[in-house]
Amino acid sequence: MLAAMTERTLTMTGALDPRGGWEAKRCPIAKALTVVGTRSAFVLLREAFYGTTRFDDFAERAALSEAVTAARLRELTEAGLLDRRPYRQSGQRTRYEYQLTEMGADLFPALAALFQWGDRWLAPAGVELRHHDCGGAVHAELRCADGHQVAVSDLDLAMKTADKHHR
Amino acid sequence: MLAAMTERTLTMTGALDPRGGWEAKRCPIAKALTVVGTRSAFVLLREAFYGTTRFDDFAERAALSEAVTAARLRELTEAGLLDRRPYRQSGQRTRYEYQLTEMGADLFPALAALFQWGDRWLAPAGVELRHHDCGGAVHAELRCADGHQVAVSDLDLAMKTADKHHR
Repeated sequence: MLAAMTERTLTMTGALDPRGGWEAKRCPIAKALTVVGTRSAFVLLREAFYGTTRFDDFAERAALSEAVTAARLRELTEAGLLDRRPYRQSGQRTRYEYQLTEMGADLFPALAALFQWGDRWLAPAGVELRHHDCGGAVHAELRCADGHQVAVSDLDLAMKTADKHHR
Repeated sequence: MLAAMTERTLTMTGALDPRGGWEAKRCPIAKALTVVGTRSAFVLLREAFYGTTRFDDFAERAALSEAVTAARLRELTEAGLLDRRPYRQSGQRTRYEYQLTEMGADLFPALAALFQWGDRWLAPAGVELRHHDCGGAVHAELRCADGHQVAVSDLDLAMKTADKHHR
């Protein structure tokens, strides 16, 4: 039983061992989820990655109510993940479109990881992410600075230091 | 403006182009979030990856109420991400511990991606994930079956086929 558990957990090192040394309130996962902690936020971001920019398209394609869409787009804009820009078509009033900022675009690995997990464990979607240049199926994975692919059981959670491995 | 947008979106191909060809209800991201769509679910999974197994530890270390902890652990167990096993210490009543299943463990890349995003964009946590063997800092990234590192702008979303690239 211990062996099975060890394979699926990481190791906390140094000042973080025992686990009590880790203050949960500092956890960047929890902080990230205060910004994108809802299904609707993730689904709207997915649409932004698919190229959706306009309010009506977001609401329709994410299958969300206008009220929820408006609230989430406002939150994501205020948090810095989306950039809201005015545009006007001839003869119409000014409207706004939403585009991913660098901060928003940097969240894509998390969405890709959820995509592959949902596809593998819940319901095959019949679609896949592919590398445009070579056609190879794309997946999210963990790599270290030296280029090794890393399993959860090969991970340490450690206090950050200024050594050469620090990205 | 178009160029900036293009850099941060992927390309929908074949039957998925135009975007209307994609039925949002089939999206595996949305399906994944019906299972792990709450901040508390992610935080409890984080604790499981840190090696937490017992109810009281989950509640305390995730800073969640007992009611929320109980509801989430039950949902995650029923969904198949955690395995609930009885244990008994001498002289005490039977209790239960929770361990990640293969399905649960497979979600780690998503948590690692949220970890690095929160650390980069919201608040540096002062901790990092490291490769146990070489000490290199670990990050989540996108790779194709041929081993190329892939940016969002190099991605196609395509109908799955049975070609050689299908993982």
